[in-house]
Amino acid sequence: MKAEIITIGDEVLRGEIVDSNKATLAQRLLQLDIECHHQVSVRDDRDDMRDAFLRALGRSDVVLVSGGLGPTRDDITSEVMAETFGRNLFLHEDSLEQIRAFFARIGREMTDTNRKQALFPDAAEVLLNPIGTAPGFAVKEQGSVFYCMPGVPSELVQMMDEQVLPRLAEQLEAPGGMMKMKVKVRVRVRARILRTFGMGESTLESELVDIARDGDAQLAFRTTFPDNLLRVFARATSIAEADAKIERVAKAIRERLGDIIYGEDDEGLETIVGRLLVEQGRTLAVAESCTGGLIAERVTAVPGSSAYFLGGVVAYANSAKQTLLGVPEPLLAEHGAVSEPVARAMAEGVRERFGADFGVATTGISGPDGGTDEKPVGLVYVAIATASRTHADQFVFPLDRARHRMLTSQVGLDWVRRSLLGLELVGPSLLRRQAGGPPPTGTRS
Amino acid sequence: MKAEIITIGDEVLRGEIVDSNKATLAQRLLQLDIECHHQVSVRDDRDDMRDAFLRALGRSDVVLVSGGLGPTRDDITSEVMAETFGRNLFLHEDSLEQIRAFFARIGREMTDTNRKQALFPDAAEVLLNPIGTAPGFAVKEQGSVFYCMPGVPSELVQMMDEQVLPRLAEQLEAPGGMMKMKVKVRVRVRARILRTFGMGESTLESELVDIARDGDAQLAFRTTFPDNLLRVFARATSIAEADAKIERVAKAIRERLGDIIYGEDDEGLETIVGRLLVEQGRTLAVAESCTGGLIAERVTAVPGSSAYFLGGVVAYANSAKQTLLGVPEPLLAEHGAVSEPVARAMAEGVRERFGADFGVATTGISGPDGGTDEKPVGLVYVAIATASRTHADQFVFPLDRARHRMLTSQVGLDWVRRSLLGLELVGPSLLRRQAGGPPPTGTRS
Repeated sequence: MKAEIITIGDEVLRGEIVDSNKATLAQRLLQLDIECHHQVSVRDDRDDMRDAFLRALGRSDVVLVSGGLGPTRDDITSEVMAETFGRNLFLHEDSLEQIRAFFARIGREMTDTNRKQALFPDAAEVLLNPIGTAPGFAVKEQGSVFYCMPGVPSELVQMMDEQVLPRLAEQLEAPGGMMKMKVKVRVRVRARILRTFGMGESTLESELVDIARDGDAQLAFRTTFPDNLLRVFARATSIAEADAKIERVAKAIRERLGDIIYGEDDEGLETIVGRLLVEQGRTLAVAESCTGGLIAERVTAVPGSSAYFLGGVVAYANSAKQTLLGVPEPLLAEHGAVSEPVARAMAEGVRERFGADFGVATTGISGPDGGTDEKPVGLVYVAIATASRTHADQFVFPLDRARHRMLTSQVGLDWVRRSLLGLELVGPSLLRRQAGGPPPTGTRS
Repeated sequence: MKAEIITIGDEVLRGEIVDSNKATLAQRLLQLDIECHHQVSVRDDRDDMRDAFLRALGRSDVVLVSGGLGPTRDDITSEVMAETFGRNLFLHEDSLEQIRAFFARIGREMTDTNRKQALFPDAAEVLLNPIGTAPGFAVKEQGSVFYCMPGVPSELVQMMDEQVLPRLAEQLEAPGGMMKMKVKVRVRVRARILRTFGMGESTLESELVDIARDGDAQLAFRTTFPDNLLRVFARATSIAEADAKIERVAKAIRERLGDIIYGEDDEGLETIVGRLLVEQGRTLAVAESCTGGLIAERVTAVPGSSAYFLGGVVAYANSAKQTLLGVPEPLLAEHGAVSEPVARAMAEGVRERFGADFGVATTGISGPDGGTDEKPVGLVYVAIATASRTHADQFVFPLDRARHRMLTSQVGLDWVRRSLLGLELVGPSLLRRQAGGPPPTGTRS
């Protein structure tokens, strides 16, 4: 079964937004082993939309369309699709009622512009939208099925998961359904992501060159700053067989790389750290200067983090470092705010004040300004304090402000993980040095 | 001049990465007033690539291709383009030398696989890549020009800016060059974004319906949660004329909408608030419970924020609210952590402890768990304290955790802006109520 994704909107074509809907939809198609062969984006333009629909009709069995279902003049997906396939529009009374009910629920009158959201091409199947005003619809044309969904990501995801994926699964399995389009022996595709932090991509690649050549499963490398991800990917005639292939390769990789693999698939370091803290019944507090709240924000983005995260202090001003974290004034005067002794004092101070098991601190110069010859932009100190000891280290990350903060926050979180697992507290550069590859992200001073 | 963007790579089609290259390239084309009409992504597949190249040839004057220039077996852009346009490949000795030099510089031997990166279709113009191994190339075919660039974003951007944009500019201006493809009178396109917070998209649209119909400039609506953006877009024969059209329409919109417009183009609310604080010589501190550091993180993401941001406390645990912010224990016991009195005490406490002009506080239930009948998921209190008064309000935002936190942080920042400008401290729902449109993001309880 060949799938295609079409997203519609001037803002996409003008580059005003990075269109993540295509990736979202493609990932979900893979859950059903359906591969996406084409992705197309067009403006809110009748001719371009018609061309895209006709082109997709000729080459794809499933076409996922996103965008152009809203109430505004620009939103013409339903209209253009009807026109393209020579159909009339009909008013779907149930949808109109639901749109009206949606507005009633939020205490408003429905406006006339919203009425057009209940117009669909003849013979379309309407797809409910429980969280917005724009229902979607499915249209069958010459053996292809077009699923039209809203462009708002949250509404798109819900409609894809609740309405479209079940229909696709049904079509795949139904006798006389889409199965007939598929090859006799169904190929199962499975993938697993191993998430690593601390080793550069080219080092990883040379470390794993023989495993990558193995052939039992494919291995691909991908950077999602500050992590490097390894994708292990296998095809087989059954899911169990594909999974077994992946497991063999993943095991070999784990043996080779050890503790720089911190997690799998879409679980970020903050999720892994949270789980370890829960498992061990430990708590965390953070004192942030250059990361400015980023560590706290990442930790608390995880639902349930209140079980182990006690809080933090964003100590931008020196006076805050003294008053709220108890960093001694002479220490600040002698070493400066960006220094190892201050980082240590911040970590110890926040641990003590919040009564936490772990205190993590950052202080550095994320730039673009504020550097000196002695303390250049990029310099940063990270510290972690426990009841028994405090560890700190100095790094220089020659990165832009956003990446400098992100990498620093990742070192802090990784040190919590390493502490909880009894691993050595090393930073990205030390791992690099051990592995012997070129530095991708920073230089340890 | 019609432009098209083609990105190549299995990882894009499988949704493993969100392909931001298309947006990057489209934005840069607009710098030369060149509009992108089509964006297409295909796998590393000969047939799909050939189809995409041929399709682009038929409809686009400029085709920007990204990806498939690396050394691996998957990288076949040069080969497939040569095949598609019936050309041979030639070895570009200079490129081979540069690739060899690149490896020498990083202390490695060039491998044989890298040799293919110096093979280009006959008559191609080679585009240097000073920061990677993959040179790009330009190919003219039947009046269309294909610019093939690497998929690595940093290399792509540099090649686009240094090699492709100057060539495009030259072609636009050269007599007998691309100009002949263009209409006689060159059309200039200009756009401006007005950023609004607090009013729903359909309300905005009905408020501005007559201005949108005006015809002097186009008006488009776009949501970048939690903001709604208005894009004013004009064509004219000169930039000055296009700008004048935009200015007329922008002025009319400003008169209509007033203070819900907080800024323009790509300046977020945190940047605007920062500039106002600098201008007025005022300082800010934040006390965050449910937003968990997000406000501090956003404020400190702006370079130079240390001039006005003193710091913050992320008070997740009740004890932290007492110890670090001085919230009285009886207040917590009587009203609970998620309550207006506690929000007020947090704002006042953080303002006092940091010695700031403004103290902003948030406390709420971002979910997905932790709600009760009396205090449901989505409930949140925001407070702002100054020397003379403290203002607080209660909202219920029925949103997922990430959006709940983002919207709450936006209310907090908007209140700082409103305080600095002497405006009424209203939230998104109150603005909605005044304007009479439907609520897009939340319901005030």
